[in-house]
Amino acid sequence: MTVRVDPSRMANAIRALAMDAVEKAKSGHPGLPMGAADVATVLFTQFLKFDASDPTWPDRDRFVLSAGHGSMLLYALLYLTGNPTMTIDQIKNFRQLGSLTPGHPENFVTPGIETTTGPLGQGIATAVGMALAERHMAAEFGGDLVDHHTYVLASDGDLMEGISQEAIAFAGHLRLNKLIVLFDDNGISIDGAISLSDSVDQVKRFESAGWAAERIDGHDPKAIADALTRAQKSDRPSLIACKTVIGFGAPNKAGSEKSHGSPLGADEIAGARKNLKWDAAPFEVPQDILDAWRAAGSRGKDAHTAWTKTLGTKDASARAEFERRMKGDLPAKALAEAVAGMKAALAASPKDIATRTASEHALEVLTAAVPEMIGGSADLTGSNNTRVKGMVAISANNYGGRYVNYGIREHGMAAAMNGMALHGGLIPYSGTFLVFSDYLRPALRLAALMGERVIHVLTHDSIGLGEDGPTHQPVEHLAALRAIPNCNTFRPCDTVETLECWQLALEAKERPSVMALTRQNLPQLRLANDADNKCASGAYEISKADGEAKVSIFASGSEVSLAVEAQKLLAARGIPTRVVSVPCMDLLLELPADKRAAIIGKAPVKVAVEAAIRQGWDAIIGSDGIFVGMDGFGASAPYKDLYRHFGITPEAVAEAAQARL
Amino acid sequence: MTVRVDPSRMANAIRALAMDAVEKAKSGHPGLPMGAADVATVLFTQFLKFDASDPTWPDRDRFVLSAGHGSMLLYALLYLTGNPTMTIDQIKNFRQLGSLTPGHPENFVTPGIETTTGPLGQGIATAVGMALAERHMAAEFGGDLVDHHTYVLASDGDLMEGISQEAIAFAGHLRLNKLIVLFDDNGISIDGAISLSDSVDQVKRFESAGWAAERIDGHDPKAIADALTRAQKSDRPSLIACKTVIGFGAPNKAGSEKSHGSPLGADEIAGARKNLKWDAAPFEVPQDILDAWRAAGSRGKDAHTAWTKTLGTKDASARAEFERRMKGDLPAKALAEAVAGMKAALAASPKDIATRTASEHALEVLTAAVPEMIGGSADLTGSNNTRVKGMVAISANNYGGRYVNYGIREHGMAAAMNGMALHGGLIPYSGTFLVFSDYLRPALRLAALMGERVIHVLTHDSIGLGEDGPTHQPVEHLAALRAIPNCNTFRPCDTVETLECWQLALEAKERPSVMALTRQNLPQLRLANDADNKCASGAYEISKADGEAKVSIFASGSEVSLAVEAQKLLAARGIPTRVVSVPCMDLLLELPADKRAAIIGKAPVKVAVEAAIRQGWDAIIGSDGIFVGMDGFGASAPYKDLYRHFGITPEAVAEAAQARL
Repeated sequence: MTVRVDPSRMANAIRALAMDAVEKAKSGHPGLPMGAADVATVLFTQFLKFDASDPTWPDRDRFVLSAGHGSMLLYALLYLTGNPTMTIDQIKNFRQLGSLTPGHPENFVTPGIETTTGPLGQGIATAVGMALAERHMAAEFGGDLVDHHTYVLASDGDLMEGISQEAIAFAGHLRLNKLIVLFDDNGISIDGAISLSDSVDQVKRFESAGWAAERIDGHDPKAIADALTRAQKSDRPSLIACKTVIGFGAPNKAGSEKSHGSPLGADEIAGARKNLKWDAAPFEVPQDILDAWRAAGSRGKDAHTAWTKTLGTKDASARAEFERRMKGDLPAKALAEAVAGMKAALAASPKDIATRTASEHALEVLTAAVPEMIGGSADLTGSNNTRVKGMVAISANNYGGRYVNYGIREHGMAAAMNGMALHGGLIPYSGTFLVFSDYLRPALRLAALMGERVIHVLTHDSIGLGEDGPTHQPVEHLAALRAIPNCNTFRPCDTVETLECWQLALEAKERPSVMALTRQNLPQLRLANDADNKCASGAYEISKADGEAKVSIFASGSEVSLAVEAQKLLAARGIPTRVVSVPCMDLLLELPADKRAAIIGKAPVKVAVEAAIRQGWDAIIGSDGIFVGMDGFGASAPYKDLYRHFGITPEAVAEAAQARL
Repeated sequence: MTVRVDPSRMANAIRALAMDAVEKAKSGHPGLPMGAADVATVLFTQFLKFDASDPTWPDRDRFVLSAGHGSMLLYALLYLTGNPTMTIDQIKNFRQLGSLTPGHPENFVTPGIETTTGPLGQGIATAVGMALAERHMAAEFGGDLVDHHTYVLASDGDLMEGISQEAIAFAGHLRLNKLIVLFDDNGISIDGAISLSDSVDQVKRFESAGWAAERIDGHDPKAIADALTRAQKSDRPSLIACKTVIGFGAPNKAGSEKSHGSPLGADEIAGARKNLKWDAAPFEVPQDILDAWRAAGSRGKDAHTAWTKTLGTKDASARAEFERRMKGDLPAKALAEAVAGMKAALAASPKDIATRTASEHALEVLTAAVPEMIGGSADLTGSNNTRVKGMVAISANNYGGRYVNYGIREHGMAAAMNGMALHGGLIPYSGTFLVFSDYLRPALRLAALMGERVIHVLTHDSIGLGEDGPTHQPVEHLAALRAIPNCNTFRPCDTVETLECWQLALEAKERPSVMALTRQNLPQLRLANDADNKCASGAYEISKADGEAKVSIFASGSEVSLAVEAQKLLAARGIPTRVVSVPCMDLLLELPADKRAAIIGKAPVKVAVEAAIRQGWDAIIGSDGIFVGMDGFGASAPYKDLYRHFGITPEAVAEAAQARL
């Protein structure tokens, strides 16, 4: 044990920094850091394996503050333990532009933060992915290189969000026993007592999901330490419900929602200092306490050194592979060869298949070349075509598999994938129906914000899915996904584009991607063996006009072949028409204006065709352009009937274009 | 008891119809109807209070098939019990264009369907809202007029979705003991055995949420009836986990995922007919069995008649009020007076306040005039300003309140609101942050698809929320919400527009609305006492140009006053500029082209200003228009710093416009 001073005094350092930083920022959340300070102190000074001087050490324990509004807890811990970038000036600049101390923890801003939290429930669900990644990487690279815990501090709010159920059920099923959740059980939410809106027995609930669970006094250092010791020995994931007082120490606001989300005020802070016997000036920490914290921050140095030594004993290729994967670099040569090989094969033997099937074929060669790819589906494996032959499922008895049965848990799946990507060493991809992207959207948004490479295979991407009807037919989802910044929405039109889009998704190291794929068969339009990736610019001319184009037709996915049919109809009527495939509108709109304009071209009539809503297409065809697509929800019927019913046909496109000339 | 034939034979009628319809349609889900037929038979022949001849009887029991893919169960039940529109020809037209038998149950298509299901978890969460509406309406109108159960048939998938946890925790907390969930515990999902992905003890889980829960044999009619009897007597909501065999009767595919989601095939159907001793031809039901079913369908006639009599005994005004509310008609006169009165007050005494506060003021007068409005928030009451003075909270001890503490459960909240609207008699509104609209999106989409009037107050609608940072700052959410068909996204610019948008939301009887509102204060721009609702056209000129406009600035919400500042800067430079407020882009884009064009106008330079992404605005300003807004995620800082940092200022707008002239 390296604790040399009373842990309660160490915890008070967190409390004081939190009060003072929130007060100076004139906004923020003092309640959680003050309430959870004892729990965090025990964890960081006695249990958490980390080396504050190097927050990138691959085998560090992960700590996730799921209750991200309590960010000052994390910033205080980083400062106190000696994280190199977290200076006291950063603490003083809490919530100011350009600081390392934003309102909620942002891993892409602050070294030492494992994931971005704030939207409740995301942290605990992301941590499940980290814990799974740990087990998988240990299976692949050995328990001497990968052997760490994942700790979560979660609030009532985290546990009320539905995603938490998906996460804990999944973790319990996979018996991720190195996952330990500390529940800051303070009985208070923003609107007041939790009893206003909740009466769940959380211990029983977690037990029903296969967890070890117990209740302790969250202000008793020994009880906290004992519970953590038991949790570390458990063969199941563990919940420790820590009864705490929100705003602990504040004379009037402790135990009340008044300490949750705003500055305590000068008088209350003075009273808290008195209660806590904390005489130090704002932002000052007595030297003995700071020394004890700094000692805690270097507790892991020996383990870190030993680990580095272990890595050095591995043979060069194993070491290089581990390091490559943790850096997130692709096996460039193998990937390039795989893509080139498949392109040649498709040119030699074209395939008129659904893009979901094309995706499966692409995955066969890509997963062989890129061992860090881990597949999965939210219980639609056969429909999403995400499991290639020979892929073994991950289970509680075999973490070495490369396929995850996520269950009917789209949201938990997406958050777990974020956690796997954040852990390092893995590129998770998964599947569900495009319409259910709505269920996973909050986690996808976080992936985009964090710049994490996760790939969602979203099949059944339009009314083309047919009989399942409007509840299952996306119409607004392409627009809604394209709206997310730093996220690529791919909608390839054939086998070759599907492969190219997969390549782009893998190569987008700091961006999530979604692949919108058809259920129905489509002709292969790309028949040449192109060396370059034509999808890389987001759009390109896939079929030239016979002469100077009077009409440009823009389309994505299943509507590209329809556009080519319309082009033929127009050509037969003497109207030269070109077709531009738009497999990724996001990439097209990111091009410099001149390059974008060159692709869009100057044909006087512009038509866009997509079996979805118009929103977004005006950027290409202009507000006076012709749009052939959907303007409302779909219907239940065989898909060919639906295309006719909604007027999305080559004839309709040709007529509309001709009428403008 | 009206059951005159063996309930197993009656159940076999469901099985046969399901097999035959799926086979004829060449797609669909026979497994659930065959597995759950015994449960449904007991429920519909002995417990469910309904009158098949009038599926609109207000006091009928509600039955929600949460596992909507098993739609043939419902269609078979409607046909067998004698629903007037559900003919055998409709069954034969299963999943065909224009039929009453779409792939998933659609309440807006098929009389007798209580809610649209298919996206898993929605049904059970919607049913919670129905059950709450029942308790509330009983408190308001008396237990002699409102006294019915809500039954749900849910699958593994429903219970794996996170929304189910939000729903059951909420229902347990409110002790909605007339809610009874029958869990079709068949141990199979699409990918295979549930044990591939789940090991939750559902009985224990529901108990942890305050439910009564038990396990039974789902093929034993007596066990089913006994459990339902116990559930009806429980003081808590009840889960009955019914162990069933998916595809019951199919010789090779029963008990396997092979019976879940595709036709059984002729041989398997022949084998099932043999197993079930079912000799009737496809789509034929032996007369004795049909008679027994029809008798079950008219079991409720006496109760219905008695109820109608009871309604007749009420005094005329109470009866009229009950009928008005169940029809969904507004109290037009009271509403008009409330709006006019508040408009006059605002003209007399303008208020420069946040639109969330303006919304609170509007709610004060509107909730007084419209008693069917039921407020709530997902634990952000003080931030969303959704609870007006004197509003009493609904609790297990007082269902008569008009405010719901939904807890930190946005998704469950939105689905419960759908259920309240579907039940009839209520207009639910609620609150969360705009960024968390992502969490409730699947339920909002269903509201739009069903055409249900629910209203979401979504505050903190841009970087204007400041220090909480990018996890809390919506940038793509306005575009993503505008993308949903049949859903109005309002973003008012001041107190008057906020009131007008509220009026439009209430008057949109068959459409959900969202209100995007600011945290920060805004000046009141509308100073005249306008009799008409200027927001009704979606956009209008809020500030005229001094002369023929060379620049049109379009803006919504907090950026309208910024646009007016830019207008002044341009006017000072001799550039006549007009400002168009766009409080509802959806309504603007629905206008006939000429009306839309008239509002957009002909100024040579068009600028749009919105502290959000560009997507969607091109429809107004053209692809060559100027956009001043966001092109990525926000940041954590005081909000005025952020507007400057991201270049969303009157100066930037004026400069960009001037540079084009």
